[in-house]
Amino acid sequence: MAKGGKQGASGVPLRKRPVSAVTIAAANGRMNATAKGSRTSRLQSSLTAQFEASADNRTRPIGVFDSGIGGLTVLKELTALLPGEDFIYLGDTARLPYGTKSNEVIVRYSRENTEFLLAKGIKLLVVACNTSSAVALDEIARHTTVPVIGVIDPGAQAAVKASRTGKIGVIGTEATIASGAYTRAIQNLKPRAEIYTRACPLLVPLVEEGWTDNEIAERTVTHYLESLKASGIDTLLLGCTHYPLLRAMFERVLGPRVKIVDSAIATAAAVREKLAALKLARRNGGGAQSFFVTETPDRFVRVGRRFIGPRVESAVRIER
Amino acid sequence: MAKGGKQGASGVPLRKRPVSAVTIAAANGRMNATAKGSRTSRLQSSLTAQFEASADNRTRPIGVFDSGIGGLTVLKELTALLPGEDFIYLGDTARLPYGTKSNEVIVRYSRENTEFLLAKGIKLLVVACNTSSAVALDEIARHTTVPVIGVIDPGAQAAVKASRTGKIGVIGTEATIASGAYTRAIQNLKPRAEIYTRACPLLVPLVEEGWTDNEIAERTVTHYLESLKASGIDTLLLGCTHYPLLRAMFERVLGPRVKIVDSAIATAAAVREKLAALKLARRNGGGAQSFFVTETPDRFVRVGRRFIGPRVESAVRIER
Repeated sequence: MAKGGKQGASGVPLRKRPVSAVTIAAANGRMNATAKGSRTSRLQSSLTAQFEASADNRTRPIGVFDSGIGGLTVLKELTALLPGEDFIYLGDTARLPYGTKSNEVIVRYSRENTEFLLAKGIKLLVVACNTSSAVALDEIARHTTVPVIGVIDPGAQAAVKASRTGKIGVIGTEATIASGAYTRAIQNLKPRAEIYTRACPLLVPLVEEGWTDNEIAERTVTHYLESLKASGIDTLLLGCTHYPLLRAMFERVLGPRVKIVDSAIATAAAVREKLAALKLARRNGGGAQSFFVTETPDRFVRVGRRFIGPRVESAVRIER
Repeated sequence: MAKGGKQGASGVPLRKRPVSAVTIAAANGRMNATAKGSRTSRLQSSLTAQFEASADNRTRPIGVFDSGIGGLTVLKELTALLPGEDFIYLGDTARLPYGTKSNEVIVRYSRENTEFLLAKGIKLLVVACNTSSAVALDEIARHTTVPVIGVIDPGAQAAVKASRTGKIGVIGTEATIASGAYTRAIQNLKPRAEIYTRACPLLVPLVEEGWTDNEIAERTVTHYLESLKASGIDTLLLGCTHYPLLRAMFERVLGPRVKIVDSAIATAAAVREKLAALKLARRNGGGAQSFFVTETPDRFVRVGRRFIGPRVESAVRIER
């Protein structure tokens, strides 16, 4: 599995440069079947990955999953900070959004995504989806031996660091906010923090429609942030992968005195630290990215460009 | 299977009155397995249902499926027009929305929904989901022997009937509009019709957020309908189950000279005609409704109330 840098674990080439057309691969079996088939060898190699800083393990890719497209904002920060690493991105586009689903279903889907990436021989897993990180991270970590990094703790740390007054606003999907995960993470770091949260379900479809700087976006953001602004927060934590695309709008609505903290940036920094601590950072080669989706890839590729530009030019469909 | 009026095909009681609490039933197996297990007997009973206007078949329930919650607007019109019929509603809430999915996936999910309802011994199937009706209706009908009614043809007929000038606007999800199904259906009926279509992806989340009469709703609707209004349409066809909840807003934005045609109302009328033609209308008893969802039912019940009021007080979860 994933011995060199040029070939992915299951024979799917990891490309240095994007190809110019959308590739729709034949379905390679149900994800569970794929993962279960190599369970023993996967667990062994995962253990190796965690505990041995061998050259072989350093060249393994980093796995990133999200419920769909939004995690590309996390991948963007990861590739900016770690240009020498290979990445495998899985977007569960057939089953998005996770933000309105029940915890039980989110945990089940998150575990399936994890199994898929583990079977690809990754050395570290990034749960880019805020909802999965909020609801399923413990469960994922319990069944995984490679290091797992979600977006909640890094985001919470960055928000606590940024805030002077301790009045922190957190926005996210219904499920992320309802989970209370950001509130707990911030309170663990700073017990006397005043945390104001708000679910903003309309912002994801707004971003996917490409409406990030029109009047409707402004009014919607204003409506959602009204009470947070009135609470006197000095820091706003963006608890959803889509929200960095509305960053300028948040800044306009909240004014210059409120700092915007982006979980994606904080998460990339946490990944770099973890790789360094485990001596798992890649030393040469690398820089490849491959994309897997559970839906036909055309919408992912089209909307994905809004997130990280022309780099998303191909994605491989897997069956669910 | 569904011999009497009080007991559903799989032993789930069909209730005359809503129960007062949410029922989360144990998963009753994967849908495919359930449906496949009784394939032969189902096909036989389906044939019977279609061709024999027996007392037994008349008391069978009508099956309705949608990608989620929106189909409740169709159910609302159905129960208003056919208060003596039993209904089984399936909302594929774990996999909504269908509107942004590929045709292949929409067809697959629609067939699974159909199999589930056929296994419940329905006498007629209503595809309440515009996206499924637009993309998968032929495929569903090919594999089904009970009568199948989608929302596209009834909606198109009502729009053609309502329009004096033949300038008809159609709004819907991305997939519905991209399918061209409404355009074809209208052109079949009135070849010289001028049809103006517009995908309005933000309207579904807007309705589910409950924002149907605030300023953001008004601006979003205005934005989407601007070009349709400028085209001089005299009729607007609501090609999405969620849109009836924005009806007052459409009327406000378009003014009194544009008629609003609701596919849900037209579909209920088409179902009544079909039952009468096949002598399958129920003669006494009936009036029960049961709800199945593929996600935990709490969000369905909560948001569903916005669609048809307090009648949605319970839903049974099935496994997907």
